[in-house]
Amino acid sequence: MNKKALAILMRARMRPNNSINPALSPLAKEMNQVNQNSPDSQSTGHAIRCDSEEPSEMRTNDAGNCEREFELVRTSMHSAISMSKTEDLDSILHNFSEGYSNLSIENRRKLLLVLAREYDLNRVHVRELIKQYLGLELPGVDKAQGSFSEEGLFSSFYRIERNLRHTLRPLYEVLFDRLNTHPGGLRFLSILRSDILSFLTEENISSLRALDSYLKEKLSTWLSPAALELHQITWDDPASLLEKIVAYEAVHPISNLLDLKRRLGVGRRCFGYLHPAIPGEPLIFIEVALLKNIAQTIQEVLWDSPPIPENEATCALFYSISSTQPGLSGINLGKFLIKRVITLVIREMPHISTFATLSPIPGFMQWLLSKLASQTKLAESDMSQSLAEGSSSTFWENILKPEEEKALMSISKDITSGKNGMEVMFNLLTSTYHKWTKSPELLSVLEPLLMRLCARYLLQEKKRGKALDSVANFHLQNGAMIERINWMADRSDKGLSQSGGIMVNYVYSLEHIDEFAYSYLSTGDIHASSDLRCTVEP
Amino acid sequence: MNKKALAILMRARMRPNNSINPALSPLAKEMNQVNQNSPDSQSTGHAIRCDSEEPSEMRTNDAGNCEREFELVRTSMHSAISMSKTEDLDSILHNFSEGYSNLSIENRRKLLLVLAREYDLNRVHVRELIKQYLGLELPGVDKAQGSFSEEGLFSSFYRIERNLRHTLRPLYEVLFDRLNTHPGGLRFLSILRSDILSFLTEENISSLRALDSYLKEKLSTWLSPAALELHQITWDDPASLLEKIVAYEAVHPISNLLDLKRRLGVGRRCFGYLHPAIPGEPLIFIEVALLKNIAQTIQEVLWDSPPIPENEATCALFYSISSTQPGLSGINLGKFLIKRVITLVIREMPHISTFATLSPIPGFMQWLLSKLASQTKLAESDMSQSLAEGSSSTFWENILKPEEEKALMSISKDITSGKNGMEVMFNLLTSTYHKWTKSPELLSVLEPLLMRLCARYLLQEKKRGKALDSVANFHLQNGAMIERINWMADRSDKGLSQSGGIMVNYVYSLEHIDEFAYSYLSTGDIHASSDLRCTVEP
Repeated sequence: MNKKALAILMRARMRPNNSINPALSPLAKEMNQVNQNSPDSQSTGHAIRCDSEEPSEMRTNDAGNCEREFELVRTSMHSAISMSKTEDLDSILHNFSEGYSNLSIENRRKLLLVLAREYDLNRVHVRELIKQYLGLELPGVDKAQGSFSEEGLFSSFYRIERNLRHTLRPLYEVLFDRLNTHPGGLRFLSILRSDILSFLTEENISSLRALDSYLKEKLSTWLSPAALELHQITWDDPASLLEKIVAYEAVHPISNLLDLKRRLGVGRRCFGYLHPAIPGEPLIFIEVALLKNIAQTIQEVLWDSPPIPENEATCALFYSISSTQPGLSGINLGKFLIKRVITLVIREMPHISTFATLSPIPGFMQWLLSKLASQTKLAESDMSQSLAEGSSSTFWENILKPEEEKALMSISKDITSGKNGMEVMFNLLTSTYHKWTKSPELLSVLEPLLMRLCARYLLQEKKRGKALDSVANFHLQNGAMIERINWMADRSDKGLSQSGGIMVNYVYSLEHIDEFAYSYLSTGDIHASSDLRCTVEP
Repeated sequence: MNKKALAILMRARMRPNNSINPALSPLAKEMNQVNQNSPDSQSTGHAIRCDSEEPSEMRTNDAGNCEREFELVRTSMHSAISMSKTEDLDSILHNFSEGYSNLSIENRRKLLLVLAREYDLNRVHVRELIKQYLGLELPGVDKAQGSFSEEGLFSSFYRIERNLRHTLRPLYEVLFDRLNTHPGGLRFLSILRSDILSFLTEENISSLRALDSYLKEKLSTWLSPAALELHQITWDDPASLLEKIVAYEAVHPISNLLDLKRRLGVGRRCFGYLHPAIPGEPLIFIEVALLKNIAQTIQEVLWDSPPIPENEATCALFYSISSTQPGLSGINLGKFLIKRVITLVIREMPHISTFATLSPIPGFMQWLLSKLASQTKLAESDMSQSLAEGSSSTFWENILKPEEEKALMSISKDITSGKNGMEVMFNLLTSTYHKWTKSPELLSVLEPLLMRLCARYLLQEKKRGKALDSVANFHLQNGAMIERINWMADRSDKGLSQSGGIMVNYVYSLEHIDEFAYSYLSTGDIHASSDLRCTVEP
């Protein structure tokens, strides 16, 4: 290949324009991959797909097939659970996972409900053991020495407790355990769970939720950090692994091979957590840029050639953390990954002393707009009610300061209308093509306002004691502090829609990680720089 | 280094003559290793060792130290269990494992009892939950469709069952879980368990047994084959790993570097299972020789230069399987290892079609001698009783055939005495320096006799439905069959003492592994070649 052709290839788009967002449709994505991994599945009896997207004249004909297909997979699932350990389990588990992957979404749902309900625990057996247990008399335990002279009396407790523990395990645990030791099984379990989660968002079925919570616990055990390997991803890694990085990069999409190569080249690092049972596919990966200072805008990070030599860097900036397995949702691998990456970077580059992120604030605009809309409504209904009632709604709050209100009302006349500052602001922020970002005058009014409200959103808005913003919650529970928010840090359409273009720096200091994580998780305390705290505290 | 010096080094003994048998004294061994791994432990406050082997005049002085030391470790154990997840656990776990490793054996025992008893489960809480549970009414479950319209009713079951599952977990699980995610923790847990096992052999304490059974279950989960990596061990591996092979080779000790190099060189293979949390130390390893035919004697395997080119080999002979962690006793990693090794060898060397072992029969002589001794005694007591009673003991059995009895009585006159064949045989076999092996006449009588009894021992002698011989049980549960027994296959002192020099070939055929393992585990069926079956069946 000549130089020119190579250059074209390196710059060619790597993801189709209309690629499905993996976070939204894990199922379709996973199904794709499973099918790619088993090219010969098309020639097996399980190959007929029953998705309802097929032309309707085919569906009648396929309904029988779907039913038959479902029964086949159901039978193989039953064998996988009930067969003795040493029979030919491998081929049964293989058939089951192949068969499942080829089922229509509706059949997958049906099958998972069968699993959750018919392979639950044996409640009759549980009750029998409980009765035996209640029949035991507790030996008097005296904390003083010699208290365990009655050691023998405890042995029946140990025995029944052990049996009870075993009996309280649902039958479907067998399937999970067997899949876990089957090649490719752990990956398949992660697909199963991502399906369960997606069905649960449609309908909250308690048996399915119990199945999910059980599977999640098992997966957490198997994916303990002790079993994970930290791997530095480089341009020398197999294409099949690099392909995954491209596919799953969730924060700043990788546009072409050249872009990918730059992210793995001088001035940057990329680390992933690999599990031996899911080879060649990091479960989670983190992208790092080596910088002079903590970056304020995404442009400072996504450079084409390194701005400084590596040995002059003092800051390692985590600019992207992506997990590849929707089925591992709720299992926090990020915390361990970040700690291990920091330790590794310090060892290799002692000149680096600051570890920070440049993170999106995905929930800011959504929160702000709904706040503005609801307050505007409340204000209206309050005014329509007689003021003589003497009590305005306690939920009503003008989130604008008087001078902000005034500035908004005076500047916006030509562009949009509104009865009060909040309505004006709502209309400005929801205008098409983010018009407000094109007017220097509007920007000068909105900048301090949005920055103040964003700081409030990050530092004070909570849900069940946790930060409302999902990314903030992720970093805070990992032990970070909020250092700084940056105006117009991400001017992309997504950035403007999500957070008005604001991005935030979280800082990890190795000596405080555990302390901060502890106080956040136990009391909900959010650590922030004093500058930022001043913005929101009177 | 010149050639001669190198040659001397390569031939130097690698293990001291009086090296401790790892199988007998895991504790001492592990303690050694832990201390080697932390050279600075001698300078810490925990360095005083309280073993009773110290001169007695020092002991009085040290008693206080021991007590103080114990309390320190007990406190760090308490912190490791009770501290919140995100506090500085790493250093606490480090202190605990360091401290534990420096405790005297008696203090270790005390500490483990504290753990087993004071960090057990909360029985009061269990009873409360049980009462709530019994208060729930089971919705009528009807197998027909629509039976789960009462889905909502189950949610309280799911909730309490989940709580009950959690409450039935002993508090010490926290310590195990935390150690598992702590660097070096899994290795430390394996040391803990090997200590527990060694204390249990001294005294059967039910709380300690419950602790052991719980830890064993946890370890099995963490060491699932999915988390293990198959690694071919070669001369290019780090010396620190190869050193482990030398230290743990349990079947045929490795005498010097040259011996080790040969075992990893042409005509041989060595594979190990590595766990990411115990780097550089295979949990179990297997040594393979590539041969023309299934070897009959150990000499055919322990050659200095390959007898045939590798591409002429048709048999892969597993001549040694050693596990390195006494703390993983009862967790069968061998089965998965053997299956994976077979698959790998077939892929790399399709000319190899036979997979067999040349294995010791460690329990044969012990069984035979105790059989001979007890039968001799029974015979005596029977004769001393009045024969008029009409019933000789039903346990009495002459394990010799009439012609064997005759041959033994006639040939042995000059060498040893005995009232009957069995007594003669007992005396012959227990003679010092295995004198019987030096007389061609005795050998000609004993060979068919010992071979027949050995086949009987392997094929028919059982304990709780399993083969009495531990190595036989290992291979049979892994799905092997007994192919052949070989006379004078191991003339070493150990070989003669254990099994009269007889060794056995087990054969693994990939297509039967699962079937044979299944029938052995479920019905106790032992598969054997027809030749061998003929020896024992009338």
